[in-house]
Amino acid sequence: MITTTLQPRFSDTDALGHISNTSFSVWFEEARTELFKIFHPSLDVKTWPLIIARTEIDFVAQTYWGRDVMIKTWLDKVGNSSCHIVHEAWQGDTLVAKGTAVMIHFDYTTNTSKPIPNDIRAQLLSHLVGAD
Amino acid sequence: MITTTLQPRFSDTDALGHISNTSFSVWFEEARTELFKIFHPSLDVKTWPLIIARTEIDFVAQTYWGRDVMIKTWLDKVGNSSCHIVHEAWQGDTLVAKGTAVMIHFDYTTNTSKPIPNDIRAQLLSHLVGAD
Amino acid sequence: MITTTLQPRFSDTDALGHISNTSFSVWFEEARTELFKIFHPSLDVKTWPLIIARTEIDFVAQTYWGRDVMIKTWLDKVGNSSCHIVHEAWQGDTLVAKGTAVMIHFDYTTNTSKPIPNDIRAQLLSHLVGAD
Amino acid sequence: MITTTLQPRFSDTDALGHISNTSFSVWFEEARTELFKIFHPSLDVKTWPLIIARTEIDFVAQTYWGRDVMIKTWLDKVGNSSCHIVHEAWQGDTLVAKGTAVMIHFDYTTNTSKPIPNDIRAQLLSHLVGAD
Repeated sequence: MITTTLQPRFSDTDALGHISNTSFSVWFEEARTELFKIFHPSLDVKTWPLIIARTEIDFVAQTYWGRDVMIKTWLDKVGNSSCHIVHEAWQGDTLVAKGTAVMIHFDYTTNTSKPIPNDIRAQLLSHLVGAD
Repeated sequence: MITTTLQPRFSDTDALGHISNTSFSVWFEEARTELFKIFHPSLDVKTWPLIIARTEIDFVAQTYWGRDVMIKTWLDKVGNSSCHIVHEAWQGDTLVAKGTAVMIHFDYTTNTSKPIPNDIRAQLLSHLVGAD
Repeated sequence: MITTTLQPRFSDTDALGHISNTSFSVWFEEARTELFKIFHPSLDVKTWPLIIARTEIDFVAQTYWGRDVMIKTWLDKVGNSSCHIVHEAWQGDTLVAKGTAVMIHFDYTTNTSKPIPNDIRAQLLSHLVGAD
Repeated sequence: MITTTLQPRFSDTDALGHISNTSFSVWFEEARTELFKIFHPSLDVKTWPLIIARTEIDFVAQTYWGRDVMIKTWLDKVGNSSCHIVHEAWQGDTLVAKGTAVMIHFDYTTNTSKPIPNDIRAQLLSHLVGAD
């Protein structure tokens, strides 16, 4: 499991007085950075090998600016060219949101998915649910 | 069905050269404005009666800055206190993303859902799939 | 003068209940699109020839979600490789913010400024203050 | 002087491949958090006593996702009801942007500025340029 601590930004809030629902897609993307590094250690955007296919988010509790948010990330499935990611966002003792993302190993020059190589797969499996 | 035309902003892009996946949650929120007006014609944020419970987005095709995006929005279910919303984002003739949102009629003072009144329900039903 | 009408997005607001000061830098960037087209009609990001060197913004009045914002943009100076841009943001009859930007004709491969060609300069001058 | 370390987010980038100029207004706002706490220790948005009047930003060097940014913040003047803030953003050994902000002690109920109390002023002066 990957643990990421994020500082909500004032601009992550909206006029309802707390964190905008739209900020969670930004935060969960940040929480995937460790997975990005497994696929693409240089993080060079010119040769980026990943695309996001789907996201789901459940908004469980209101979230506030001024307190850190901790995001737990793990994998619940690694397919041939895709991985299924699970995120939970916690603020203090409160689960405030949970989400999933389907990320695909992708070739932007041919616009097609490509198989996940074995060495990358091995690293991903260490983040599979129940692996730690 | 509600049709919303949006201009992608340069800041909606990311370093991969096209629209960030995170921008769709912002765009789909904008596309719900007509629904917000049905529930809350004043749009006054101090007395806002809605909360978002869940979103799903499928990213179907790459989306570009510099061309308008058209979002089609309709309802596929109106429950006792919630409504289930469907969005499609089109850029030219290309379906670039589709999503759903579950929005709940909500009392922020008691932090509980509340039934959708009949007059609001009648207006929502005009946006139910197949209604037009 | 260039006139741009923008729809504030709900995510442009912050927890103080109105538009975030940070949204104006996004909006003013959008208002420069017509100038971008003069320099770079294709708008292709891979061959983008402009860089922003400086911005100033004065926040004059509170700005609200739910009402369009009109941005007036003109040039007050065209230099050898730079142009000095002025923006005003109006919501209804209220001037809500004004700003300037210094934009430079730029070669990202050599990381140096380059002179503004005469044909582009001629088009820019039609947006000089007092030109219309 | 206040030092703030920020993690650039992937959504802080734009299609030119590096950090969007618009992200600096967000980052500098975050860097003012320690000043917000001096004025308003609770950080409660419902009783927020500050408004931003003006910002200036000079973009000095390109900034990249994937590496922390350190922001140095100090005051160069404390007036009757306003304070003049200076920010520098550093990525590694590179000064990437510098900016200023004019922030006003403000009463949102009367929409007028109000004098900075002496106890707050004393704390602000510890962040005056040359104070440390």
